[in-house]
Amino acid sequence: MEEWQPKQYVRRVAVVGCGVAGLTAIKACLEEGLEPHCFEMNSDIGGVWYTSDSPKPGGGPQMYDSLITNISKAMMCFSDFPCPPHYPPFLPHKLFQQYLHSYAQHFELQKHITFNTKVLEVAKAEDYITSGRWTVTTTKVQADKQTEEKTTSEFDAVILCQGFYRVPHSPHVPGMKEEFKGKIHHVDSYKNPQDFRDRTVIVVGSASSAGDVACDTAPVAKQVYLSVHHGAYTISRLVNGRTPWDFLLRRVTLNYVPRSLAHRVMVAKASKWLDPVSSGLKPKPSQPRSQNNFIVNDQLPFKIMTGQLKVVAHIEKLTGNAEAHLEDGTVLREIDDIIFATGYKHDFSVIDPSFLSSEPESEKLELYKMTFPLSLPHDTLTLLGCLRANGPIPPLLENQARLAARVISRKHKLPERSMRRHDVDLINSQQLERHGCLKYAFQYLDIADNIATELGIKPNWWHFCLQGDVKMALAVLLGPAHPFHYRLVGPHTWDGARDAIFSAYRETVFATQHRKVAIEEGKERGGSGELRWLLWMVLSLLGLCLAWLCL
Amino acid sequence: MEEWQPKQYVRRVAVVGCGVAGLTAIKACLEEGLEPHCFEMNSDIGGVWYTSDSPKPGGGPQMYDSLITNISKAMMCFSDFPCPPHYPPFLPHKLFQQYLHSYAQHFELQKHITFNTKVLEVAKAEDYITSGRWTVTTTKVQADKQTEEKTTSEFDAVILCQGFYRVPHSPHVPGMKEEFKGKIHHVDSYKNPQDFRDRTVIVVGSASSAGDVACDTAPVAKQVYLSVHHGAYTISRLVNGRTPWDFLLRRVTLNYVPRSLAHRVMVAKASKWLDPVSSGLKPKPSQPRSQNNFIVNDQLPFKIMTGQLKVVAHIEKLTGNAEAHLEDGTVLREIDDIIFATGYKHDFSVIDPSFLSSEPESEKLELYKMTFPLSLPHDTLTLLGCLRANGPIPPLLENQARLAARVISRKHKLPERSMRRHDVDLINSQQLERHGCLKYAFQYLDIADNIATELGIKPNWWHFCLQGDVKMALAVLLGPAHPFHYRLVGPHTWDGARDAIFSAYRETVFATQHRKVAIEEGKERGGSGELRWLLWMVLSLLGLCLAWLCL
Repeated sequence: MEEWQPKQYVRRVAVVGCGVAGLTAIKACLEEGLEPHCFEMNSDIGGVWYTSDSPKPGGGPQMYDSLITNISKAMMCFSDFPCPPHYPPFLPHKLFQQYLHSYAQHFELQKHITFNTKVLEVAKAEDYITSGRWTVTTTKVQADKQTEEKTTSEFDAVILCQGFYRVPHSPHVPGMKEEFKGKIHHVDSYKNPQDFRDRTVIVVGSASSAGDVACDTAPVAKQVYLSVHHGAYTISRLVNGRTPWDFLLRRVTLNYVPRSLAHRVMVAKASKWLDPVSSGLKPKPSQPRSQNNFIVNDQLPFKIMTGQLKVVAHIEKLTGNAEAHLEDGTVLREIDDIIFATGYKHDFSVIDPSFLSSEPESEKLELYKMTFPLSLPHDTLTLLGCLRANGPIPPLLENQARLAARVISRKHKLPERSMRRHDVDLINSQQLERHGCLKYAFQYLDIADNIATELGIKPNWWHFCLQGDVKMALAVLLGPAHPFHYRLVGPHTWDGARDAIFSAYRETVFATQHRKVAIEEGKERGGSGELRWLLWMVLSLLGLCLAWLCL
Repeated sequence: MEEWQPKQYVRRVAVVGCGVAGLTAIKACLEEGLEPHCFEMNSDIGGVWYTSDSPKPGGGPQMYDSLITNISKAMMCFSDFPCPPHYPPFLPHKLFQQYLHSYAQHFELQKHITFNTKVLEVAKAEDYITSGRWTVTTTKVQADKQTEEKTTSEFDAVILCQGFYRVPHSPHVPGMKEEFKGKIHHVDSYKNPQDFRDRTVIVVGSASSAGDVACDTAPVAKQVYLSVHHGAYTISRLVNGRTPWDFLLRRVTLNYVPRSLAHRVMVAKASKWLDPVSSGLKPKPSQPRSQNNFIVNDQLPFKIMTGQLKVVAHIEKLTGNAEAHLEDGTVLREIDDIIFATGYKHDFSVIDPSFLSSEPESEKLELYKMTFPLSLPHDTLTLLGCLRANGPIPPLLENQARLAARVISRKHKLPERSMRRHDVDLINSQQLERHGCLKYAFQYLDIADNIATELGIKPNWWHFCLQGDVKMALAVLLGPAHPFHYRLVGPHTWDGARDAIFSAYRETVFATQHRKVAIEEGKERGGSGELRWLLWMVLSLLGLCLAWLCL
């Protein structure tokens, strides 16, 4: 067992991959006085957000041209680096990559990255038992292929930042490989709709990427079908034509509103955006509520009402004469292409899978705080991004990175093994109960606050109350759970956090106002936003009390 | 003055133009036993809806590829020819043209049309004073140009179906012609966004076409600005993600709800679709409410929130260094293109303008029921489509055509000249009061019912009440004012009208349901629709009574 030791020397940390997780891991290592060495197989930062017109030399999924974040800029950012005020509320992917570049530049992260270098293996060092050190074997990636030369170095710790989105997953459909002669694609390699001009396309899936690709191909294709299995609800990026939907991710809802009530409100909102019955998207009644999918999409209603996109049932089989037989007996004919937008599989090929789980063949992961493998005696191997959430991923990865770096630098000690085991078992049983399988899909704020609590960076509204800072207490409890909240308390707070929190609404919502408009007196909504904020919060609180009394 | 005579022989009627108006004019003439001869300058029917990849041989506006009707299929159709159930709720323009083809085929209209023939002049025949007859001079249009040969024939009557959308109108912007070196376009010649790839574009206008073109170019252009003068509100095609917005065109609203209240409700709805303040679209407070524009657009919110499209103020001048100086002091730089979506001018060049107005130099029209020139002694020259409306144009044109044909066939006599003069003056003064100019923009149902009243085809809800047909009474008063309502009473009723009225909701809203979804018991919305209808209607009535009591 690892002994608790004072810091003796600068510990070298290998960061594997330089996407969002890798960047924030480098930053967190620097914050804790560690020496990060990041290996990135592509020639630029960004990971899944890095795009090139040709296939990426280092491999990995391609981001489609039309991709626009479905999380607002005030939630999608890191906790101490808000997006500039002139950015629009939702960022086209190139703008988000630009944001990542400014982050890297601002915190001088680039010099810690070795590009065009693929990590082949992360293995225990010879003296692992005593030192907890790791060897990292890398190879140079050049012009579309890897060279044969391998380099092995030793590190005090490793942060694996490869995430979940690694290997495209397509379900097996009978007849797909044996009979069907049309083309089979995965959203992973989808760039733009040009290849689908005048073709009949089925997009399979009921997550946001399925909606995106279906809407993207609809205007040029002959006909696009969106085939869904269990169905889904659709929500818009904006609530009431103004406020980003993710501004509804609030601690008051998570902690004080019954889940079933919150779900009902969400379904009612979604149903007014796109009627689930007439659109054909309604989830099957057999599906438990907690498993209902919500697609964030602003174009689906338009594409559906104009007939460019038809929602159809699950494909049961494909035939040699280009037919797709659906679950409800419908037969779609003359199908040219099928695009699977059915997600990704885990891929932890660089490490020994037995590190992650006592059942390495299964989907089961045993990771404390979804970050630290339970089976290893030293906390020197950490994994970021092995989870899904219904909210922003960057701040979640940042919390994981900050915790990892703090533990690696031995400034934070994780609880005893038995407590960790209890926590891991709880998460696994909750996942099974909610999703029927180990999807590791979390309520964003639930998991983000959970990790933050371990690290001591979770803001508590009653702490602020006790300090007499009622405004911040209300913001933390009733306001949108911006990433900046995680820089208010604990290690490495940020002086700008308070400003960032109170200007987030204005800088996000009013980023689109380029023409001055006259506002009738007494009707000003937003503006500095603060008055409205307070009013809204007090009203919410009253409403909440009423709801509790009535229930 | 024309004498009231019994029908003596089959009267020959020249129909000028074979767009929507021309088609319904031919149909109406046939219905009344007249002999229509339609001249169409293009090689196919459709008028503005006819599209070709090359410029139209006969000239006229091009419809852009992405155009989708902003009126639902249950309102956009003719009164005795509903769109097929499998059509989507809103029709891409090619599908609407297909609908026009089926209409022409069903009623065998094609044989009355002479294609590739342009009408050059419509003039009084020599014996006009006694006969009311007209001479029509035409020329053949071949391969992009007109030939020199002219043919003149005599007709008992003429129905001019050229409408308002004839000559593109662009406002004069200082510097536009003298200094600005970028390209100037009009939406009239806009086909698709290809020419605007990676360019900086300003789209000028605040009507639906401006919104369409701005959204269409946004994904490919470097930056698109939408420059609005007075501002506008934006509404979606669907209300609550389900019901077409035009299903709110109801007689109860028009006749029994104060205009200011209806306007307020509309503004509230629109503001929840796209917040007018944060989007920068809010109409100037100096603009009277009646002049507020409503853009029907389902993509604006998305394009604005992602920064692809920026709403900016009115352009004050353009400079030689590609700058646009805006009213609010903003300067936009590196402008490559300006697209004017600023409407069309009247063009009545085939007739003597003095027929239409005692002030031929002005915009003023003196047309009884917007159809019959007041100045002519015989009612043998009629004009269709010289108006704008906030609703479906085809049924409006159909009402005009039916009235015109009925009058030409002498089965209907218009009132005395003095009464007509009174009616025309009233319309002109109302237009001036509402719009500040003679735009001839009407509330759809107002003008459609007005024309229908003259012809005796307007359904009265209390008539149905007296006949004990409460269901139809409620549908006529409280239901959407479908075109089929004009086939319930008066000349040429249609047996299918009742069915069409009661199935319109189901056939429109549920046309998008291709995947069967389970509906929880007791929660069925729609379905046969009838029960819901009744319930909704009774509730509306109660609400109305309450509103009246409270006001």
